Amino acid sequence: MKKYGIDQGLPRPDAHAKVTGKARYVNDYHPPKMLIGGIVGSPVASGRIKSIDVSEARRVPGIHAVLTADDLPGPNSMGIIYDDQPVLVKDRVRMVGDRLVLIAGETREAVEEAKRRVKVDIEPLPGLYDVTRALDPDAPVVNGDSNLIREFKVIHGDVESAAHDAEITISGEYHIGGQEHAYLEPQGTLAFPEADGSWTVYVTAQCPFYVRAAVARFLKLPISMVHVVQTVTGGGFGGKEDYPNEPAVCAAALAKVTGRPVKLIYARDYDMQVTTKRHPMVIRHTLHARRDGKVVGVDLEILVDAGAYAGLSTVVAERANISSVGPYEIPNIRVSTKVLYTNNLFGGPYRGFGAPQVAAAHESQMDRLASALGMDPFEVRRINGVSREHPMFASGENLPQAHIYPELLDRLEELSGWKQYRNQPASSGRYREGIGIGTIIYGVNLHSGGQRLDRSAAYIIVQQDGSVNVAVGVTEMGQGALAAMRTMAARALGISEDLIYVTQVDTNQVPDSGPTVASRATVSGGRAILDAVSKLRPRFLEVAADMLGVSPGALDLRDGVFSTSDGSALVSWPEVTAEYYVRRLNPAVVGWFRSPDREYDHDTGQGRAYMFYAFAGHAVRVRVDTETGKVDVLDVTAVHDVGRVISEVGIEGQVHGGVIQGLGWALLEEFRMKEGRMLNAGFTDYLIPTAMDAPADIKMYFIEDPEPQGPFGAKGIGEPSFISVGAAVMNAVYHALGTEVDILPLTPENVWRLMNRSAGNNAAREDEK
Amino acid sequence: MKKYGIDQGLPRPDAHAKVTGKARYVNDYHPPKMLIGGIVGSPVASGRIKSIDVSEARRVPGIHAVLTADDLPGPNSMGIIYDDQPVLVKDRVRMVGDRLVLIAGETREAVEEAKRRVKVDIEPLPGLYDVTRALDPDAPVVNGDSNLIREFKVIHGDVESAAHDAEITISGEYHIGGQEHAYLEPQGTLAFPEADGSWTVYVTAQCPFYVRAAVARFLKLPISMVHVVQTVTGGGFGGKEDYPNEPAVCAAALAKVTGRPVKLIYARDYDMQVTTKRHPMVIRHTLHARRDGKVVGVDLEILVDAGAYAGLSTVVAERANISSVGPYEIPNIRVSTKVLYTNNLFGGPYRGFGAPQVAAAHESQMDRLASALGMDPFEVRRINGVSREHPMFASGENLPQAHIYPELLDRLEELSGWKQYRNQPASSGRYREGIGIGTIIYGVNLHSGGQRLDRSAAYIIVQQDGSVNVAVGVTEMGQGALAAMRTMAARALGISEDLIYVTQVDTNQVPDSGPTVASRATVSGGRAILDAVSKLRPRFLEVAADMLGVSPGALDLRDGVFSTSDGSALVSWPEVTAEYYVRRLNPAVVGWFRSPDREYDHDTGQGRAYMFYAFAGHAVRVRVDTETGKVDVLDVTAVHDVGRVISEVGIEGQVHGGVIQGLGWALLEEFRMKEGRMLNAGFTDYLIPTAMDAPADIKMYFIEDPEPQGPFGAKGIGEPSFISVGAAVMNAVYHALGTEVDILPLTPENVWRLMNRSAGNNAAREDEK
Repeated sequence: MKKYGIDQGLPRPDAHAKVTGKARYVNDYHPPKMLIGGIVGSPVASGRIKSIDVSEARRVPGIHAVLTADDLPGPNSMGIIYDDQPVLVKDRVRMVGDRLVLIAGETREAVEEAKRRVKVDIEPLPGLYDVTRALDPDAPVVNGDSNLIREFKVIHGDVESAAHDAEITISGEYHIGGQEHAYLEPQGTLAFPEADGSWTVYVTAQCPFYVRAAVARFLKLPISMVHVVQTVTGGGFGGKEDYPNEPAVCAAALAKVTGRPVKLIYARDYDMQVTTKRHPMVIRHTLHARRDGKVVGVDLEILVDAGAYAGLSTVVAERANISSVGPYEIPNIRVSTKVLYTNNLFGGPYRGFGAPQVAAAHESQMDRLASALGMDPFEVRRINGVSREHPMFASGENLPQAHIYPELLDRLEELSGWKQYRNQPASSGRYREGIGIGTIIYGVNLHSGGQRLDRSAAYIIVQQDGSVNVAVGVTEMGQGALAAMRTMAARALGISEDLIYVTQVDTNQVPDSGPTVASRATVSGGRAILDAVSKLRPRFLEVAADMLGVSPGALDLRDGVFSTSDGSALVSWPEVTAEYYVRRLNPAVVGWFRSPDREYDHDTGQGRAYMFYAFAGHAVRVRVDTETGKVDVLDVTAVHDVGRVISEVGIEGQVHGGVIQGLGWALLEEFRMKEGRMLNAGFTDYLIPTAMDAPADIKMYFIEDPEPQGPFGAKGIGEPSFISVGAAVMNAVYHALGTEVDILPLTPENVWRLMNRSAGNNAAREDEK
Repeated sequence: MKKYGIDQGLPRPDAHAKVTGKARYVNDYHPPKMLIGGIVGSPVASGRIKSIDVSEARRVPGIHAVLTADDLPGPNSMGIIYDDQPVLVKDRVRMVGDRLVLIAGETREAVEEAKRRVKVDIEPLPGLYDVTRALDPDAPVVNGDSNLIREFKVIHGDVESAAHDAEITISGEYHIGGQEHAYLEPQGTLAFPEADGSWTVYVTAQCPFYVRAAVARFLKLPISMVHVVQTVTGGGFGGKEDYPNEPAVCAAALAKVTGRPVKLIYARDYDMQVTTKRHPMVIRHTLHARRDGKVVGVDLEILVDAGAYAGLSTVVAERANISSVGPYEIPNIRVSTKVLYTNNLFGGPYRGFGAPQVAAAHESQMDRLASALGMDPFEVRRINGVSREHPMFASGENLPQAHIYPELLDRLEELSGWKQYRNQPASSGRYREGIGIGTIIYGVNLHSGGQRLDRSAAYIIVQQDGSVNVAVGVTEMGQGALAAMRTMAARALGISEDLIYVTQVDTNQVPDSGPTVASRATVSGGRAILDAVSKLRPRFLEVAADMLGVSPGALDLRDGVFSTSDGSALVSWPEVTAEYYVRRLNPAVVGWFRSPDREYDHDTGQGRAYMFYAFAGHAVRVRVDTETGKVDVLDVTAVHDVGRVISEVGIEGQVHGGVIQGLGWALLEEFRMKEGRMLNAGFTDYLIPTAMDAPADIKMYFIEDPEPQGPFGAKGIGEPSFISVGAAVMNAVYHALGTEVDILPLTPENVWRLMNRSAGNNAAREDEK
């Protein structure tokens, strides 16, 4: 029995094709004369190219193009924010896998043979692999003039005087690891020149409009002549936000030179080595409080390891920066978030967008404070959390949603069995159990800094048989956007979901709707649909009213029937659409959504950071094997402030995915690095959770307090489902072991390290004043 | 130096791809796992199926499906107006090529082998091959209950009393032949089931929305789930109006059964044998006049040979019916147009849509009248033609355009050198020269009977770099629609044409815009574009005004620059589009066009038949070899009332094509028939004009009297460029030989027949009262 949701309970429109293997991913397309593309990447992270010899590679039979930087048919630079990355490196190598040579050939075998025959001579240079050393005077400068790409700040109140007045100060330095996206489908694209001079690009991507812009820029074509089709996308998680521009431009370069379609699919090892990752961060967090539990100030320094190119790291950092204080009203705040070049892995967007890392720190700090004061972790959160009485977020905004956070704490405490598990006698044998929580505030949609991109379109065509085509600019990447759009379009119109056909993004079909990120698909896609329907529905009501001889105002359309409130006049939706066509009225409309403009001071982080906010909380119960350091998860409780559930199955899927991906990040997934090279690029050595690693139970509760700005009251769920999981795991391990936890992932080795750390070496300190 | 046009003189956007052979026609697509489709057609035109044995065909290696009527996965009936045609014949064969079996296999060779192995046993039945016998009591009934599919009438005044009062009566029975479309690209389609349950159909077609409806009906799918993409279309001329539904449904049936993409391309001989043709007609025309040249009545019976299925024959006949009187104000009219089933070739739409056949009759009759009265053909036309003073069309409408016809006569007389050539001494040797004219009135756009379909959409997206995507629902089939849309969009916006990218029709991209026929592409596509721009332009003017600090009303956008009338404030289009995107405003719109509702009495043919009218006139000079009967064309003059020329190159191309295709119809193209079978199906035996057959000169004049309902004042040119050519040839031969001409085509054999016909056997008679 369904408890939540406004949907009609149909299977997801993409489900059957995906589970039967029939869905066509980009690698399933084979246009005539297609060539296979390949990339030769740098084996070292830092060096100077002495020579690249491609003469032997060019002689391989079946090879049509071997391009070095000098052969590119377009500008040799790219970058979504900063133009700091070459398409092909000519002189200086900055990361492992930096592209040196592009190859196109008839077969994969020929391309692999040609790759082997490329001779590259690189003189190694000293590299920068420790982000904490990035600003040292003697550190190598990785890119541009300085390793500091950008700094973000929050300045709120006066943290110095808070420090002076505080009764207790908790400090910690948190080393939070990155994460591989591990999407099911690796990066891939297929670019081909059309006979009329336009271009078509098929791509697995979250943001087809980014790909279009990048390819148009590279080919020096008007945007209107580049047609990007999002193929069925096997997962993104942020990894297909900006990154797909790179293979798309490479494939376009090869297609331009050869005049033939070129498909470029990344092999898994290359994909893992070179594509963007969740950023490793070092977070120095100092918390000033009174003995009654009230936090009076926080002082944070966040070092974001961007890798060798800026990519979207600054945008990720912007969210980390303002999220770093957590869901608390704290009167004095100082945050400095520094985005830094290194020769490490390429940092980029990943579900949570910098917030999970900072949540790990702010939630650990809250638990340390609770511990220091002998309070319950819920108690310190109730004291400091935002609420109707204390609605102020770190940005200085008074949140209309603030009253939801106390409710969330209540639900989380109740549903997780907190009182039982937290207060059970401390275990002392080999296996120690613990329970911990993490809670967060999440700014839905794009940060103020990215609001320029925050618009979205829905193009709706009602057909004469009553079926409806819906094209939205937000993408389905596995998260269920097509289903959610179908539900919202059907609900808004008042007809059955099986009449609605929602298509994947095709850039010729819908205007640029920004990126599908930041849990904005439901909100921005849904709002655009509502706008479209608000224009379409009256047109059909008018025809129905005319057919029935009543006034349009007297009619409603519900469940596919137009009727008056007393039910005396009835006409079906297909009868009306047929008549509408007889009358030759315009059956199509472009709906539009644009979030309100927000003012935000980037020097102080004060203003309206986000369109609105959602809260989330996780409780995790663990059992730690103190002999091996292995952490098992016993159960997880997730409480989400979602505004309104669109689909129960859909939201449960998001929560399942978010929790398990979060547990993977917190417990298993670790980059084994050597001089910028990932040693465990491949699923044999880089472990992601399997069904065996999933907890027996994930309990969920959804607070439905409709958000006025959300469609049907809905907020986003994609990222909140992940963000506080890691923090809860850290606090659960802290509870189980009594040892402060300042590192992620909590692999057995790291747990051992924590357990065996002497008090003196403990990076976290409690100073009582 | 360009004399006409509002375009910027760019090459057509589709030109380069077509002349270099790069354009991708439907046969150039090869999706993975594609099968080849084939059809086994009936060898006889009339018969009863005794058995079809496909067991051997099914055993051919590589064959995946062999379907008879019993195996079809959808309803076994189709038809654009009347549901009178089976997808596969089960019992009764009605035309040569009637589909009996559908086959899909891995290769064309396998399919051909399977076709050979199908054993069909058909018992011949008597057939009906003479349309004049269709209503005889003993004639075989070809389809339904009667061979009379429908009758159209014009009843205006009292033709009986006119006959009684007339001083001279001219009667003729005209036997006008049909014509093969001879499009460069034969019929073809590619249908494939998508993984999500939707379907995609690629098709060479004028009316992708018809194809979508037919396939959705056959597959029992909502219209929204059938996606039809018009591939580059190598000519249509009406032959790709309704007919593509047939191969599309066949390919869909095979794809449905096999679960694989199926491509079905007609071989030329099959295409010529079975697809629709220009209708042969028998026209009995009686004209009553006074000795002063005034025509007081016409009495017409038109027999339209539809072939075995109705198709669009009734719609063609509807235009023939109302066009049969010509551009004359005649007080008493009776027309009966009968659409009749026979076992002959399948009649259908063809450039001119029934009007060329009736023009051949009404213009021959006018010349006979002139001859009988010793008047000049221009004189009888000036006396009877519509004009400001005599504006009434056969439908009873007073035409606002009527004043253009006298001007057209003047221009035609002047430009053709009429006085010189008409009055040169009669030649008497082997070679005889003559000059003749044909003039017509053409109802632009769909007849009142089809006005339900007369709407059209344009979907415009302005991109942030100032480039613009334009999707229209009217199709490019070679006639230059993409170029015309580009010009109109650029002109309407006020920017350069090279910023506009117009796409072929994709049914997911634009709402159903009706068929691209009846010379309506420019008018209806253009009007939809103007509507879209009228909504978009003010949005951009407003932003520009805000940027410049002036009021929007003070600004104009021209040549890509927004400026005030004094030129003091300037900002470029791309600057404004970039700013527009920064402001996140909706850059897309759906423009819509809907012609005004028209009242029309189908019992009398009185009312508003068309949206507006255009006139055209041709003068043709011929030299007839009286020994061989061969007619050579010396030159052609074309005068067209076009409202406004969009592109000089484009309109010249249409006129060149119309004239030469018209000469082919009039002189070369003849169906050699035997019991419903076309004996000359193939370009070896069915002759169409080559460059060698083209006249040395085609003189043109375009009257630019802007039509208020046309975009930029434009009317259509596609059909008028053809319609009066045949009539002019007939009158030229009449002039050259002094022998009445009542047959088309004027092949050498037919000319011989005319020359050797004794006066007594002459089908046309002049009765002086």
